[in-house]
Amino acid sequence: MSIRVGVVGISGFGGGEAMRLIASHPSFELVYAAGEGSAGSRLADRFSGVPARLAELVIQKWDPATLPKLDVLFASLPTGASAEALARVPREVKIVDIGGDHRYVEGWVYGLADVWPSQIEGQLRIANPGCFPVATLNALAPLLVDKLIEPANIVIDAKTGISGAGRGGADSKFGYAETNENLVPYGLLKHVHMPEIAKTIEQLSGGSAAGLVFTPHLVPMTRGVLVTAYCRGRATTEQCLDAARRFYAGRALVRVTDKPPQTKWATGSSLAFVSYAADPECNLVIAMGVVDNLGKGAAGQAVQNANLICGLPETAGLNGVPVWP
Amino acid sequence: MSIRVGVVGISGFGGGEAMRLIASHPSFELVYAAGEGSAGSRLADRFSGVPARLAELVIQKWDPATLPKLDVLFASLPTGASAEALARVPREVKIVDIGGDHRYVEGWVYGLADVWPSQIEGQLRIANPGCFPVATLNALAPLLVDKLIEPANIVIDAKTGISGAGRGGADSKFGYAETNENLVPYGLLKHVHMPEIAKTIEQLSGGSAAGLVFTPHLVPMTRGVLVTAYCRGRATTEQCLDAARRFYAGRALVRVTDKPPQTKWATGSSLAFVSYAADPECNLVIAMGVVDNLGKGAAGQAVQNANLICGLPETAGLNGVPVWP
Amino acid sequence: MSIRVGVVGISGFGGGEAMRLIASHPSFELVYAAGEGSAGSRLADRFSGVPARLAELVIQKWDPATLPKLDVLFASLPTGASAEALARVPREVKIVDIGGDHRYVEGWVYGLADVWPSQIEGQLRIANPGCFPVATLNALAPLLVDKLIEPANIVIDAKTGISGAGRGGADSKFGYAETNENLVPYGLLKHVHMPEIAKTIEQLSGGSAAGLVFTPHLVPMTRGVLVTAYCRGRATTEQCLDAARRFYAGRALVRVTDKPPQTKWATGSSLAFVSYAADPECNLVIAMGVVDNLGKGAAGQAVQNANLICGLPETAGLNGVPVWP
Amino acid sequence: MSIRVGVVGISGFGGGEAMRLIASHPSFELVYAAGEGSAGSRLADRFSGVPARLAELVIQKWDPATLPKLDVLFASLPTGASAEALARVPREVKIVDIGGDHRYVEGWVYGLADVWPSQIEGQLRIANPGCFPVATLNALAPLLVDKLIEPANIVIDAKTGISGAGRGGADSKFGYAETNENLVPYGLLKHVHMPEIAKTIEQLSGGSAAGLVFTPHLVPMTRGVLVTAYCRGRATTEQCLDAARRFYAGRALVRVTDKPPQTKWATGSSLAFVSYAADPECNLVIAMGVVDNLGKGAAGQAVQNANLICGLPETAGLNGVPVWP
Repeated sequence: MSIRVGVVGISGFGGGEAMRLIASHPSFELVYAAGEGSAGSRLADRFSGVPARLAELVIQKWDPATLPKLDVLFASLPTGASAEALARVPREVKIVDIGGDHRYVEGWVYGLADVWPSQIEGQLRIANPGCFPVATLNALAPLLVDKLIEPANIVIDAKTGISGAGRGGADSKFGYAETNENLVPYGLLKHVHMPEIAKTIEQLSGGSAAGLVFTPHLVPMTRGVLVTAYCRGRATTEQCLDAARRFYAGRALVRVTDKPPQTKWATGSSLAFVSYAADPECNLVIAMGVVDNLGKGAAGQAVQNANLICGLPETAGLNGVPVWP
Repeated sequence: MSIRVGVVGISGFGGGEAMRLIASHPSFELVYAAGEGSAGSRLADRFSGVPARLAELVIQKWDPATLPKLDVLFASLPTGASAEALARVPREVKIVDIGGDHRYVEGWVYGLADVWPSQIEGQLRIANPGCFPVATLNALAPLLVDKLIEPANIVIDAKTGISGAGRGGADSKFGYAETNENLVPYGLLKHVHMPEIAKTIEQLSGGSAAGLVFTPHLVPMTRGVLVTAYCRGRATTEQCLDAARRFYAGRALVRVTDKPPQTKWATGSSLAFVSYAADPECNLVIAMGVVDNLGKGAAGQAVQNANLICGLPETAGLNGVPVWP
Repeated sequence: MSIRVGVVGISGFGGGEAMRLIASHPSFELVYAAGEGSAGSRLADRFSGVPARLAELVIQKWDPATLPKLDVLFASLPTGASAEALARVPREVKIVDIGGDHRYVEGWVYGLADVWPSQIEGQLRIANPGCFPVATLNALAPLLVDKLIEPANIVIDAKTGISGAGRGGADSKFGYAETNENLVPYGLLKHVHMPEIAKTIEQLSGGSAAGLVFTPHLVPMTRGVLVTAYCRGRATTEQCLDAARRFYAGRALVRVTDKPPQTKWATGSSLAFVSYAADPECNLVIAMGVVDNLGKGAAGQAVQNANLICGLPETAGLNGVPVWP
Repeated sequence: MSIRVGVVGISGFGGGEAMRLIASHPSFELVYAAGEGSAGSRLADRFSGVPARLAELVIQKWDPATLPKLDVLFASLPTGASAEALARVPREVKIVDIGGDHRYVEGWVYGLADVWPSQIEGQLRIANPGCFPVATLNALAPLLVDKLIEPANIVIDAKTGISGAGRGGADSKFGYAETNENLVPYGLLKHVHMPEIAKTIEQLSGGSAAGLVFTPHLVPMTRGVLVTAYCRGRATTEQCLDAARRFYAGRALVRVTDKPPQTKWATGSSLAFVSYAADPECNLVIAMGVVDNLGKGAAGQAVQNANLICGLPETAGLNGVPVWP
């Protein structure tokens, strides 16, 4: 069975990664690609390595009125750019929105695929979590559900590779020379990802209010997100690891590890890694989460969500081993 | 049909990449892994992201006497370390030697898979080309066969990422701090890859003697090889591109491009890119070749060769789109 | 006036940086260099760019019994390797120990040069702070002295470039291919730098007990330390900045900035950057500190300390503008 | 004696590096800075680490009509942007043009400072060589003067860090994510630096016509240029090294080395490194040159030229040891 899929926002990093994963997917067939910067080009002009059967696909100007017949549409548009247009997509076309416009919006399911897959199965509108949120929430979920940490007091120190900050663009803020060998904190006390993290924490902890500090840092690497979260709790390291092993039993795309996870473990894959270090005497639990920001943090989880809404195995097209080194 | 394969040298970068490609291969089943540094470990202990079905495979101490029943063995051992041991592998086990010991050795076919695939089909012993040679020879082959350049006068300026120089090891020659932001020429006038390049050039040009200069450089990046070869000839750029398009017609894993190829186009894939720039008035042809040194430059071409000797489609397991960015 | 100085441990990154700074110092003359790995070499054999007047200096095997007449000795030896030998250096030779053996040891002054310069002036034995401690303590000192934060509850999320982890060595733990594009947390709940941080915090806060969490991360860059410290307190951002501006008034080598500091701002220099972001309603103060781990975090502060003990201007030889980009 | 200097183009990498070197210069006082993007800012707003005495200098909009009294003006403007404006600078203000507009233009001396310093002393208008040319010409000059190579047949394979390609800018061509882990050949058969190389080769070889191939490559590093030049000649390696040692005797800022030079040897300095490998039987001489593209390749040589035209020691302000690692 071939499922007809499209990608809008293919010029961006998230859309390009969706194309890459779809190209290797056993059931998805890419029949539509749209993008601002690249409309009119053949797919092979933008992505030197696409296989022959996709090379001649012409990238369209994005317009919901001219969509071909599609089963699934992946949208990877800048925040603010997708709400209006996606509302005009026919209801029967399933949508996974990788962008930020539909997270915790009515009519859309927040697609935290490793945490609540059964809420996603069979849905038509999925809002894919951001890269920082999924790294954070996959690490915290088992602790919150088992009440091993206090939701009211969580310090999240987050680190991302540069592709997590988007495709550069006109202001050259992420030019190579200024970015390499440089580590940069930003967005202090006001990062855009906090609301979806807070709302999910409150759901997972049965309604308790979340109290969060969130500080992102830009790391001189292309891909990868690591979240180091400092929580209050009296559990031991082993209790935290056990909680996570139970929580993720049967979930193929999360790995619970007793060593601190490294970002490169996930590169090019849709895996998430979680680990813990706790000191009960100090009332301290450190939770760590790693994802590839373009994999589990964007396109990888989008394909995982598309698998779930299409009734496919969750891991279809996502079994690739990470690229190392 | 499942083909039983093994990898020896799994602790090294080449062996690890072979494992990665085998794990996604539709017909290969990894049933044996051996390695010096990692014997006794589970595969999941060394490679955090392997899928569950491979996680418990225990890495063996390498010993040809204790091989399980295998159809294909991939060997990725340091130069000098494989000749004696591989001679003790039962004849019916097909071998692809990624290491350097059997190139242009009697009884072994030099596995330049994109150039002479029909010589490889059905063979039992394949010597996989080195990463510099395959990048060079894939670029030069069409020109040599069409006699567009003189084999006697070729200057090869070669550049490699650090993983092409092997896994570091005891002398910390490639420590991060000394290597990042550093570009290093090495091995002037004496690089080990010259003989296999020279012999292949002579074959392709019908016996004319090759005259080569070969200068490798270490580039501060993990993966990737680019060869810039300066040749004598009166062809135009378009004639060179045409020669390559004809030569590689029907070969899915070589891309002829009219833009200078970039190493990152190939990352994580088994593709080779070739391009040309010529100035007939100056009697000059510049031929460029790009590969991922661990992909087409090692494990990718090894799987391609294994496909050919097993009667599978050349591209089985190798259709993945390169990782970008 | 020329002050005769020596460096032991010149093969390491810290010792090499000390040599680099001494070579440009207006009053210091390098008359002695010793190192394990490089004994017998000329300085120019190890450091390609030394000026002619230093090129022929022969690196000695380290032995306190054969020291020439020296005014100041810089010691940059691995932890555990300096205590015994430095005890045999004549008392009148001033010592700045860049290594970790003498921090908070009797008879040695902890050389936190920007915080308590007057305690350092004229002393004979200085224990130079570690790179994480100086980045942390320079940021926290003004807040502690003004009682704007609680010493009992400080979460320190620390990030360092690879040279901060030492010169590679036999196990190739920091090989380029494994380290680039990789972010690695390590030493959870047990990092070696905690005691000197805790003791200094207690001093600065008038004896209150320090309660610390300290988590270091390896960042894929060569130089640079950034510390992000999460503290409890009711001050505003502006109050924190003001406290720091007052505290560091007249101190040329600390910069108080209202933007989050970036590691590259300090590269190659002996500067420290501190900044703050606070949310009084959340009882939260985030303090940030940046240093070059080999500059202010090692050799730069060592020269600053040597200036202080020799009665020179604190900034002698340290006025260089950081290297950018 | 204080010499009053100005820098126009301070927002660019070359202008910024000129500022950095001037700030440490014993005789130069920076009294004027101009720049497009940064006019109106204080110097400290753009360069976090400038010393206090320069912090308050306000960057001007560039206009030759409003220059203060100056002894020397450093101009670092994009190609095409400086000719008209510099013509309006009063004749008595000495100018060193780091940009490309005045190379081999009448009334301007081509400032190849290590090769013909006596032609530069006391001049008023100096055109600073480009970064590729100086790396190439410093390596070739001794061979050309001693007629050890044929000027008519030189293949130059050149590699540069990203800052050599300028400050990014609107098209994000050098965004971090696309540039890291990527090696890119460009400008084949038509690079802009060829004319100044050809003209200088012809001068150095007594009028013989130069025959050049020049191929630049972008390397994923911030600073550094390495040129590998393949020449025809019958000299031995030792004869080439000897020629260079004689040619550069007494020149403090060129190092002749018998090991292949690495780009990081020069980082942050105004040094050039040259080396050679020759095979007389193959009629082959490989000449290698390394510079920091912002040091000897731009601002470093500009200061060296300014020293020469002001009657100062060539090395004034340029004795800094390169930054390593």
